[in-house]
Amino acid sequence: MSNKEKVPENTAVRLSLCLRYLREMKDDENISSEQLAQLTGIPSARIRKDLSYFGQFGTPGKGYTVGKLKEQISKALGLDRQWNIALVGVGKLGRALLNYLTFKKSSFHIRAGFDVEREKIGKKISGVKIYDPYQMPKIIREKKIHMGIVTVPQEAAQEAVDLLVISGVKAILNFSPVRVVVPRYVKLRNVDLASQIEVIPFYLAKDNFPDR
Amino acid sequence: MSNKEKVPENTAVRLSLCLRYLREMKDDENISSEQLAQLTGIPSARIRKDLSYFGQFGTPGKGYTVGKLKEQISKALGLDRQWNIALVGVGKLGRALLNYLTFKKSSFHIRAGFDVEREKIGKKISGVKIYDPYQMPKIIREKKIHMGIVTVPQEAAQEAVDLLVISGVKAILNFSPVRVVVPRYVKLRNVDLASQIEVIPFYLAKDNFPDR
Repeated sequence: MSNKEKVPENTAVRLSLCLRYLREMKDDENISSEQLAQLTGIPSARIRKDLSYFGQFGTPGKGYTVGKLKEQISKALGLDRQWNIALVGVGKLGRALLNYLTFKKSSFHIRAGFDVEREKIGKKISGVKIYDPYQMPKIIREKKIHMGIVTVPQEAAQEAVDLLVISGVKAILNFSPVRVVVPRYVKLRNVDLASQIEVIPFYLAKDNFPDR
Repeated sequence: MSNKEKVPENTAVRLSLCLRYLREMKDDENISSEQLAQLTGIPSARIRKDLSYFGQFGTPGKGYTVGKLKEQISKALGLDRQWNIALVGVGKLGRALLNYLTFKKSSFHIRAGFDVEREKIGKKISGVKIYDPYQMPKIIREKKIHMGIVTVPQEAAQEAVDLLVISGVKAILNFSPVRVVVPRYVKLRNVDLASQIEVIPFYLAKDNFPDR
């Protein structure tokens, strides 16, 4: 479906947001890019450009059919199949993410958890079995796990990432507030919760926005 | 310190990342924008441009003094003062954030938690007292709270945000995966953990990157 142009990183983020609103609508409804813009806060021209990377969507003047658009965005994002996840670090943040990911009709399934705490190993948390990290290569192979989510303390992050890479995982979402290194063939995405909070005072300092 | 040019949204995010690395260095060390680029993965020209919004930093050819740069970025980001926070929703994610925010030397202090669960109200969690949401306007005034962090379930998010706004909070960080509405004078930042995960398969689908 993709053309020769390189797809910007944020396209996936924006389309994912569109998808969230489309999921709340009926499949046979129609929606224009302007309506989608109003719902999501993304400019309509940006939405049309984002969709254009993946081929022809909708009818000019008539907009999109919700069901069809949902299906095509899902396919573009790779959400039309099942993704198996390993969660490394089953502390408070890890358990919060377990809850987030147990929503219905999700493409994502946490198939295994890993934690160094002895009292967690062998138990099930939110229906997910927790293993000792030394079992990672075996479990990840057996359960056909594609991606890892890392929610361990800062000082353990690189070790957790290395274990995932050795185990054959091709994508990692790192929540530890530290820079980790992966080989080129592994996709790494960092989510830094602390800096999400740290940037807010900047917006509160009005003189940073002289034209308001 | 700011000039007439509008500061881009992502400048604060990038400077916050730079700050993280500077904090690990000694104050009297020197660092060039190229070294900072290597550490953070941000292009050095971008770093110099980001810094330029806030005045003149460093000496051409010699780079920056770590201590001075840290101080100036902190000031630019508004981190040279104390920010008081209210946490609305003290579930798993809320408690994970409480842990995140108890790091030393932080500019952020969670001064109060709010939750509808009776068994939490009146108790202390990670040293923070939990209140009934109806007490919000009073507590926020008394404790001089500037910003709110919302970690309630989706269906309760708008109500939580409305209560914060009524209580006089000027900035809100929303972790609920739903779009909420605030008046123009309130700064809202959404952190959508689910979509952070949802965009990963896109990167795994290699044909989205024809030039790799």
